[in-house]
Amino acid sequence: MEVIATIRALDERLSEAGRVAFVPTMGNLHEGHLALVRLARAHGDTVVVSIFVNPLQFGPNEDYHKYPRTLAEDCAKLESVGCDVVFAPTVTEMYPTPQQTEILPPPVADELCGAFRPGHFRGVATVVAKLFNIVQPSVAVFGKKDYQQLFIVRSMVRELNFPIQILAGETVRADDGLALSSRNAYLSGAQRAEAPRLYRSLGAVAAAIAQGERDYPALEASARRELESHGWRVDYVSVRDAATLALPQGNPPQLVVLGAAWLGETRLIDNVEVTPSGTPSVAV
Amino acid sequence: MEVIATIRALDERLSEAGRVAFVPTMGNLHEGHLALVRLARAHGDTVVVSIFVNPLQFGPNEDYHKYPRTLAEDCAKLESVGCDVVFAPTVTEMYPTPQQTEILPPPVADELCGAFRPGHFRGVATVVAKLFNIVQPSVAVFGKKDYQQLFIVRSMVRELNFPIQILAGETVRADDGLALSSRNAYLSGAQRAEAPRLYRSLGAVAAAIAQGERDYPALEASARRELESHGWRVDYVSVRDAATLALPQGNPPQLVVLGAAWLGETRLIDNVEVTPSGTPSVAV
Repeated sequence: MEVIATIRALDERLSEAGRVAFVPTMGNLHEGHLALVRLARAHGDTVVVSIFVNPLQFGPNEDYHKYPRTLAEDCAKLESVGCDVVFAPTVTEMYPTPQQTEILPPPVADELCGAFRPGHFRGVATVVAKLFNIVQPSVAVFGKKDYQQLFIVRSMVRELNFPIQILAGETVRADDGLALSSRNAYLSGAQRAEAPRLYRSLGAVAAAIAQGERDYPALEASARRELESHGWRVDYVSVRDAATLALPQGNPPQLVVLGAAWLGETRLIDNVEVTPSGTPSVAV
Repeated sequence: MEVIATIRALDERLSEAGRVAFVPTMGNLHEGHLALVRLARAHGDTVVVSIFVNPLQFGPNEDYHKYPRTLAEDCAKLESVGCDVVFAPTVTEMYPTPQQTEILPPPVADELCGAFRPGHFRGVATVVAKLFNIVQPSVAVFGKKDYQQLFIVRSMVRELNFPIQILAGETVRADDGLALSSRNAYLSGAQRAEAPRLYRSLGAVAAAIAQGERDYPALEASARRELESHGWRVDYVSVRDAATLALPQGNPPQLVVLGAAWLGETRLIDNVEVTPSGTPSVAV
């Protein structure tokens, strides 16, 4: 496995790399990332993982500076799952001049997490477009844990005609249900014990929908109250059409329940996909 | 030469095309376009020319619907200069769904022509990014006649890391100096006789700068008055730093004098590059 820091060196390494499968990350890798790398391994001749904490997607009061950077440990993990190339550029390599050309993502980028993190998905889409052009993969893998990000990347690839297939990796969870996330490292012991409630609350909404409940605002409010009563500060709990991330109109075949909430200074997100039952249990 | 209308068919045609040199156009081709194609011919194994009148770059009151569409004549001309593939997609092929992901170009896109055509360069940058991803060229050729467009495309390629070399083609002019443009076809006989004044006026500004004049606002105002006194409606005449398109700060090594003005219902643009003399003729 090679660790490469410059675009020029990466170009040389990939000049005869065959079909490249790519996993962009911000490092501090956990089993969730490694599952994405295994998926990439099954879809390419050469697996490239990027590790880059992208300043463009952090707000001025967010955790860019304290975001954990653990390159040596990350590389050891990546080697164990068959990664061929780690691309770990500096900020200057990625942004040698102020980034004035950006990707403007679809309007849904201003909802859900985007409503609480203005400009976040513009920064994500921009760095992903740059990485796509640098790595030129045939396949790229993103996790469902960042469901809205996956949706925006898929929209960008389709609407800007990137010749890249996007694969989605399932969310990997701890035994108690908590979705693995680099930000879990910020949690105290007590917060870590409380953290799985986010997944349980979203799951309860999904279960009710699966059983025919259609009053989504009531379900959302109930989940929010449950979290707030246990000390969470809730950004949102929202039931969306999984195909469009819009509010459900009519009877979409697949929904997703998304949530973002804070435990102390740590913001956690999660989501649960659900297929609504055919027969609503309440008349609306 | 093949004429191809779908992305899928183009992919097949280009699967073993070697080094592709690409010229994006809106059709209604003249000698200016053909010079770009000859330049492309010298830089690629396969020359692809796209012909697509892009609705995204026209304002609601602009000439999208009346823009001349002359595919058969265009193809005959392209074959004569060694084009291999004409890509002429429908609007539906390029925009099967509403375009919600766009390229946000640098702030200078809101100045000069962008100040008079809001969103124009966003539409240009977006369709160029799409075409780059569809055609995947090694080289792409743009004309200096659309100087601001060339600047914005170069910025996009550099800042989004497109693996594409951009070549600039010199402006081709009629014997009387008028820059060739599809929109010249809109001019009446009298307007056509008047039209070269735009180039002469910009050239007079450039000549004064070459001789040491540094009072750019005075030169711009003089060119504007000259045009207005001959019936033009002037959008702008502006002296800019050729490297940044910003207003000149200090003594940039290369300037460009850009102008846009209307004769009746027809908007013409042109520009003249100039190297300022070392010794200003006026103290400022």
